[in-house]
Amino acid sequence: MDDRHRLDQVKELFHSIEELIPFNRYLGLQTESIDHEGAVVHLDMRDELIGNFRDGLLHGGVISATFDVVGGMAAMATAVLRGASIEESLQRLRPTSTIDLRVDYLRPGAGRRFTARGFTLRAGSRVAVTRMELHNERDELLAVGTGTYIYNYADQ
Amino acid sequence: MDDRHRLDQVKELFHSIEELIPFNRYLGLQTESIDHEGAVVHLDMRDELIGNFRDGLLHGGVISATFDVVGGMAAMATAVLRGASIEESLQRLRPTSTIDLRVDYLRPGAGRRFTARGFTLRAGSRVAVTRMELHNERDELLAVGTGTYIYNYADQ
Amino acid sequence: MDDRHRLDQVKELFHSIEELIPFNRYLGLQTESIDHEGAVVHLDMRDELIGNFRDGLLHGGVISATFDVVGGMAAMATAVLRGASIEESLQRLRPTSTIDLRVDYLRPGAGRRFTARGFTLRAGSRVAVTRMELHNERDELLAVGTGTYIYNYADQ
Amino acid sequence: MDDRHRLDQVKELFHSIEELIPFNRYLGLQTESIDHEGAVVHLDMRDELIGNFRDGLLHGGVISATFDVVGGMAAMATAVLRGASIEESLQRLRPTSTIDLRVDYLRPGAGRRFTARGFTLRAGSRVAVTRMELHNERDELLAVGTGTYIYNYADQ
Repeated sequence: MDDRHRLDQVKELFHSIEELIPFNRYLGLQTESIDHEGAVVHLDMRDELIGNFRDGLLHGGVISATFDVVGGMAAMATAVLRGASIEESLQRLRPTSTIDLRVDYLRPGAGRRFTARGFTLRAGSRVAVTRMELHNERDELLAVGTGTYIYNYADQ
Repeated sequence: MDDRHRLDQVKELFHSIEELIPFNRYLGLQTESIDHEGAVVHLDMRDELIGNFRDGLLHGGVISATFDVVGGMAAMATAVLRGASIEESLQRLRPTSTIDLRVDYLRPGAGRRFTARGFTLRAGSRVAVTRMELHNERDELLAVGTGTYIYNYADQ
Repeated sequence: MDDRHRLDQVKELFHSIEELIPFNRYLGLQTESIDHEGAVVHLDMRDELIGNFRDGLLHGGVISATFDVVGGMAAMATAVLRGASIEESLQRLRPTSTIDLRVDYLRPGAGRRFTARGFTLRAGSRVAVTRMELHNERDELLAVGTGTYIYNYADQ
Repeated sequence: MDDRHRLDQVKELFHSIEELIPFNRYLGLQTESIDHEGAVVHLDMRDELIGNFRDGLLHGGVISATFDVVGGMAAMATAVLRGASIEESLQRLRPTSTIDLRVDYLRPGAGRRFTARGFTLRAGSRVAVTRMELHNERDELLAVGTGTYIYNYADQ
């Protein structure tokens, strides 16, 4: 199977994750791209996501939740795409479990459309470490993060 | 003014924060208690907060968002209650800004009703560090966290 | 084998770790106690461990290094002591690898003798999460930390 | 004063920090460069810095200590170099205090010569957040980190 086909399958998987997980749907996360190094999702500002009522800024908890999701996607993508057979990978792999998450809030969460990127820094057989970044539509870096995830397998 | 009266004022302030911040309202955070050492909030399980559709577990992002809020409440409470005059404190203090947040997920987020506690570990004039814990209704410790917050003042 | 005997064996193991690891010897870490919930080590102030030459405070890096060690000890102790056979555990288990470490510096590192405690918060088959605390001889809490460790086995 | 002159002054300041702080001297940290975005230090492997006696790897605590130092240097450099007058900055600024530090260990600490870089991600008037990276002489990324620092001023 060629790489493009594999990526399509992974995107489909992640699309179903977006749709199936109620809280992700509430956040409004939209997957833009997936490759073996990571994942990119978008998020549009809405009143419901506001954390600071005076200035209309994105809630810090929306940022941490988005980082948790995009970091887990990056960890999954790396694991699926490095396998010899993507069908086998997709059958064996269960959604990752987050062990820990760190978020650094660099600037107030101002913007209309946000882009969160997850990059896999390390992916062993059992544990992955990912790096996350959040930019607004003016390409300002608002927050960075780091996540550690456990890989779960169906046969364990 | 006696201590009970001060606490009542702080609770009222926090109640208005719950009501005024849309994302907190979505999470359904209910403040139980506030004192000079910290804050306690409750959170009831709902379908919208699910992160794992197979097992119906609380979304990791709900936990990180709740920790961000209850840690900030603890930092605020400590600052307000140590002041000589609570009226003055409430006038000067603006909501804290989160600098960074770490969450450690210890057990799957199973439960019907969750309790999040924030404790102030250090509160200087500019920065506070808080510790957070999440238990379910069976008193199982599901997650712990640490947050660092900046104090903002109206006159700065 | 009774519990006391098991603890003695673990202490002996850790004593050899202190002696065999050059950097631990330089720090001067002395194991006080070990049990299934964690570990306690002591550290005496010396000129070589100073990080602030004006005030003679303990270097933040000494604190982070000590937390890395005592957290790893706690994770190891929990793994060894929960096994059915301590001999088997000691043969199978290799020193843990640190995945990540967070340190929160609460107060300046003033003191003559420091006590670092590591507590195991979660210990799965593959990953452990620990909590650490540093006090001085006046029982002031100077720093707290959290570590995540991978268990390594000889047969993997 | 031209920029080169300013950088020279900052380098001199940091050189004296290396020499004056006993624990930095023990680690053997050598400052390579400083600019307004961050700092770079080198570290040579020595037996005393070993954490794993079987494989001769760098101790995780040496890495966390080095990150604490190079992150603080980056935060200081940014604060000094953005000021209108470097003389004034150097007189007003005291060494930063670390609030918190996170280290992610990505690969075993193998190598003969290590390079640690600190980048300033955010520098407000009171608090700075920095990012750190450690590479060995084969340019392998061994660890990343994040630090939060408070700026201290002589006149406060």
